[in-house]
Amino acid sequence: MLTLDATHEEKASSWLESANVTDCPFPIQNLAFGRFRRQGKPRAALAIGDQVLDLSAVAEMVDLPVEGLKQGHLLGLSSGPKRRELRHWLFRQLQDEESPLRAQSQWWIPQSEADMLVPFEVGDYTDFYASIHHATRVGSMFRPDNPLLPNYKWVPIGYHGRASSVVPSGTSVARPSGQLKSDEAEAPVFGPCKMLDYELELGLWIGPGNDLGQPIPIAEVRDHWIGVCLLNDWSARDIQRWEYQPLGPFLAKSFATSVSPWVITQEALLPFACPIASRSAEDPQPLEYLRDDQDQQFGGLDLQLEVWLRTSAMQQAHKVSSANPRDLYWSLGQMLTHHASNGCPMRTGDLIASGTVSGPEPGSAGCLLEQTWQGAGKARKPVQLGAGQERMFLQDGDEVILQGKAQRDGFRSLGLGSCSGRIG
Amino acid sequence: MLTLDATHEEKASSWLESANVTDCPFPIQNLAFGRFRRQGKPRAALAIGDQVLDLSAVAEMVDLPVEGLKQGHLLGLSSGPKRRELRHWLFRQLQDEESPLRAQSQWWIPQSEADMLVPFEVGDYTDFYASIHHATRVGSMFRPDNPLLPNYKWVPIGYHGRASSVVPSGTSVARPSGQLKSDEAEAPVFGPCKMLDYELELGLWIGPGNDLGQPIPIAEVRDHWIGVCLLNDWSARDIQRWEYQPLGPFLAKSFATSVSPWVITQEALLPFACPIASRSAEDPQPLEYLRDDQDQQFGGLDLQLEVWLRTSAMQQAHKVSSANPRDLYWSLGQMLTHHASNGCPMRTGDLIASGTVSGPEPGSAGCLLEQTWQGAGKARKPVQLGAGQERMFLQDGDEVILQGKAQRDGFRSLGLGSCSGRIG
Repeated sequence: MLTLDATHEEKASSWLESANVTDCPFPIQNLAFGRFRRQGKPRAALAIGDQVLDLSAVAEMVDLPVEGLKQGHLLGLSSGPKRRELRHWLFRQLQDEESPLRAQSQWWIPQSEADMLVPFEVGDYTDFYASIHHATRVGSMFRPDNPLLPNYKWVPIGYHGRASSVVPSGTSVARPSGQLKSDEAEAPVFGPCKMLDYELELGLWIGPGNDLGQPIPIAEVRDHWIGVCLLNDWSARDIQRWEYQPLGPFLAKSFATSVSPWVITQEALLPFACPIASRSAEDPQPLEYLRDDQDQQFGGLDLQLEVWLRTSAMQQAHKVSSANPRDLYWSLGQMLTHHASNGCPMRTGDLIASGTVSGPEPGSAGCLLEQTWQGAGKARKPVQLGAGQERMFLQDGDEVILQGKAQRDGFRSLGLGSCSGRIG
Repeated sequence: MLTLDATHEEKASSWLESANVTDCPFPIQNLAFGRFRRQGKPRAALAIGDQVLDLSAVAEMVDLPVEGLKQGHLLGLSSGPKRRELRHWLFRQLQDEESPLRAQSQWWIPQSEADMLVPFEVGDYTDFYASIHHATRVGSMFRPDNPLLPNYKWVPIGYHGRASSVVPSGTSVARPSGQLKSDEAEAPVFGPCKMLDYELELGLWIGPGNDLGQPIPIAEVRDHWIGVCLLNDWSARDIQRWEYQPLGPFLAKSFATSVSPWVITQEALLPFACPIASRSAEDPQPLEYLRDDQDQQFGGLDLQLEVWLRTSAMQQAHKVSSANPRDLYWSLGQMLTHHASNGCPMRTGDLIASGTVSGPEPGSAGCLLEQTWQGAGKARKPVQLGAGQERMFLQDGDEVILQGKAQRDGFRSLGLGSCSGRIG
């Protein structure tokens, strides 16, 4: 098990003043990694304060413990020991008034000006369904008497997603066309989706992989992931409704999946590890391959995730809902171990998403489909955004912004950054 | 539309005698491309007769029209005009007694000795469900009164597969473990799959991609694929049965997908293009985005695909079934156009599979699940393999070999090569 160390010291601060501002998402306790494009080429990057540090440039001058940064990729972060060594080095440098990082102004650009990329070339993207609150609410819409299918509390349900349409935050999302069929219509028509939705999710960036045929034991699963991101699994509900039987969601999902640009490392998140909250004493114990003491104690993450929506008629975004991945039914480790349990190979840079993160309370639904639903037989109620604006589903020009932060007494608050996308 | 040319000339023959042997899968009219490993590095390759020609070596000496061969990859085949130019050059060289190819013995190795790779680094792999005979038979097992779901004749049903577990022919396939639950059991158990099956499929290698948000019109779809392969979508039926609701097949499929090593180009297959046979006058017309005169006339492929099975107690493999992709309900072009219709980006080297290819007749079922089924309420009947061997599902040590050929009067017969895998 990892242990808290100097990088978790609440009082530590930097000579970079913007990193010390209260509620700054990227203090020196975070040290999030990403990639950005500079003069047409991908460069490795560190988020600190309101700045991006060009890690590729640093690596050209300094012998850093993580390989590949000079070449502009983050694959070397896969090694836990090397990643931790790099974090400690950066942590010290950002405190040290005499650090050479400070003098090199050409290594720094404001985050607001950086052209961020997806942190890794995604080999495979998998989307789980780990929120029992989401699964129950969505199940209730289709099967009021039997909302949760019998396998839900045994199997971390997931499906393969599309890697080619994973895009960085800020990418515009074109409204997809597809086959639509109302219950009354005899035949489907092909046209623009009318029930466009977001899904608030947590993404997991995979580190060292496993060989074909070799599982990843739950006791070792923490060695196999690097960090997390925010993820919006855009969904075309009407396309999904008509296409998804019997093989699951397909074109309803594959038109775009947005991710936040910064990999928030498992080291930075350590103070916020917690038990998952949704499994009760009455629920079946996980099968042995999914059971581990450490995972039961520290397999959850206590994070405040939020969905904000801004229509083209609004100046300011409005907070639609908030949810906490602590409320998932399956830990991120259980998802990863389950995924590899049949011998399916993971590769560094693969992306695993939690599925929509929804909580038990009203106002904690991670998508409009749930948030506008009032119960079986009741009319849907549009989400009120203020200024006379309301939404049942997304309209052209709408911008969805996911945000996330981590807070705990005795520790510096961190942010996950933001994941945004505008329709049209 | 492509037209027949010199490379389709039935009588053309080579100075390489093995290419002229009757029933040789790789005569000079085929000219299939692949990759193999030589001294630890990937090399581009041509299949001709019983030999592999090291195209990377050729490209080091001769200025070939297709880029990247020297570097050991096939991405340059994506360009139709360049691919055709290369085929014509090879076709002439392999006829020309004075060709420099002939003298360079170090450019040649026997196919039986070549360490073949998957032809492309697969970005995304998608599996369709395009055989109406397969869908109807499998549907009958679960829904006797309503075997085909209402969307089947409108939507080319498919799901995202796992790219990381696509392996070349010859790779051993470990029996996957997973959650299994019988109807009688209260709870699932985790253990080795007991209902391991193959699926006979045709794979499509994608050429030029589309940008995010841009569809691929059906009239242009032929410009977007390079060629085909044989594909075995290994399936764990018991894992699938328990996990697949509501999001579709997941770990039941992602432990391995085998592909034959040679890309059989669309140019070589041109004489075998035909209408798809399974759509009848009573069936609904495809929606406009899936409708094209050329595709209706030439969107099918008339190929003889076969499944052979050899248990560890058998000397010779036994032919279990044969099927023809002409009998699919959707053309390969319709699948590709549908896939991109929501703006999902395709990338060169992506892999699209047809789904199990089954025909209408007994003995034309592309998997054991179907082949052992005798109708609703009737007991399953094991497949007889001779020599006292029979199978309901695959056992350890069993080898499954998919084969394919193309035959038509007035044209040289071609083979697709073989796709094999042994359990254990």
